Amino acid sequence: MTSTPIRILGIDPGLRRTGWGVIASVGTRLSFVACGCVRSTDSAELALRLRELHDGLADVLATWEPDEVAVEETFVNKDPQSTLKLGQARGVALLAPALYGAPVSEYSANKVKKTVVGVGHAEKRQVEAMVRVLLPKATPETADAADALAVAITHAQHRGAAQRVARFALLAGSGR
Amino acid sequence: MTSTPIRILGIDPGLRRTGWGVIASVGTRLSFVACGCVRSTDSAELALRLRELHDGLADVLATWEPDEVAVEETFVNKDPQSTLKLGQARGVALLAPALYGAPVSEYSANKVKKTVVGVGHAEKRQVEAMVRVLLPKATPETADAADALAVAITHAQHRGAAQRVARFALLAGSGR
Repeated sequence: MTSTPIRILGIDPGLRRTGWGVIASVGTRLSFVACGCVRSTDSAELALRLRELHDGLADVLATWEPDEVAVEETFVNKDPQSTLKLGQARGVALLAPALYGAPVSEYSANKVKKTVVGVGHAEKRQVEAMVRVLLPKATPETADAADALAVAITHAQHRGAAQRVARFALLAGSGR
Repeated sequence: MTSTPIRILGIDPGLRRTGWGVIASVGTRLSFVACGCVRSTDSAELALRLRELHDGLADVLATWEPDEVAVEETFVNKDPQSTLKLGQARGVALLAPALYGAPVSEYSANKVKKTVVGVGHAEKRQVEAMVRVLLPKATPETADAADALAVAITHAQHRGAAQRVARFALLAGSGR
């Protein structure tokens, strides 16, 4: 089962810029597929900006046809207005793959750092450097795209364990 | 221009329950069309809950074909996690009408209270009572549906002024 190749889309949501990155995972081997950034027009009304993000992500989903999607749970400690803004962008980042029909997992920023760099308090630069080491062919032009690839890598590492637990529960007859 | 009937959809967003209410406005006359509440499954994953809200609102939009949509800007002073959750639901509430193609306006809770009751610090009950006075045929079964009707009423009161400003700007050649 772990030898079946799957395609994972990672998303780092933001109202201005939402980063995305697609990787292929076969067992423990990972390879870069594509990455980029969906932008919204600063001067446009909020509903239209959210539609820009949705349309951009819908394009990415239709083009790269991921089997599974992972979205970063951004840590929030700013003012409520910024948190609300981020929440709105995250809502769209979670909705687009759900409308497309792919299962969506969420990972905290700390989990992503710990998985990719090895420590939960790693700096953004360290995450980017490790993404380039793990995916030598990746060419993320923005920090958001690099972050999105890190989220996809995190899902590739953890989905196996989650599936094993689910399979064990199934074998044990708990139906989970 | 003010005699052309228009249909307004008001939305009071929330992750558990998103209230909606449709009214018709002809000049200063308002009438009740429909209202209700879209619910998401508590136990479902966040992305699927957001999809439930989206699908419910898409149904409402397709059924009642509003010309304009108004969404409440809920005031946030709770913990960041609640704000993020509300933001995600709001993102979907703003996106659904944008995907449908209707213009979306936003109104603060204070503006809604001030418009419907006359004071910005009115209680929820006063808002509901005034909605029943202004729309005698309305039968909101939930507080969320009554709030959504209040948002629609607010838009009916303020859209005229906004349009007059836009028309004046156009006539003045500023192109706004």
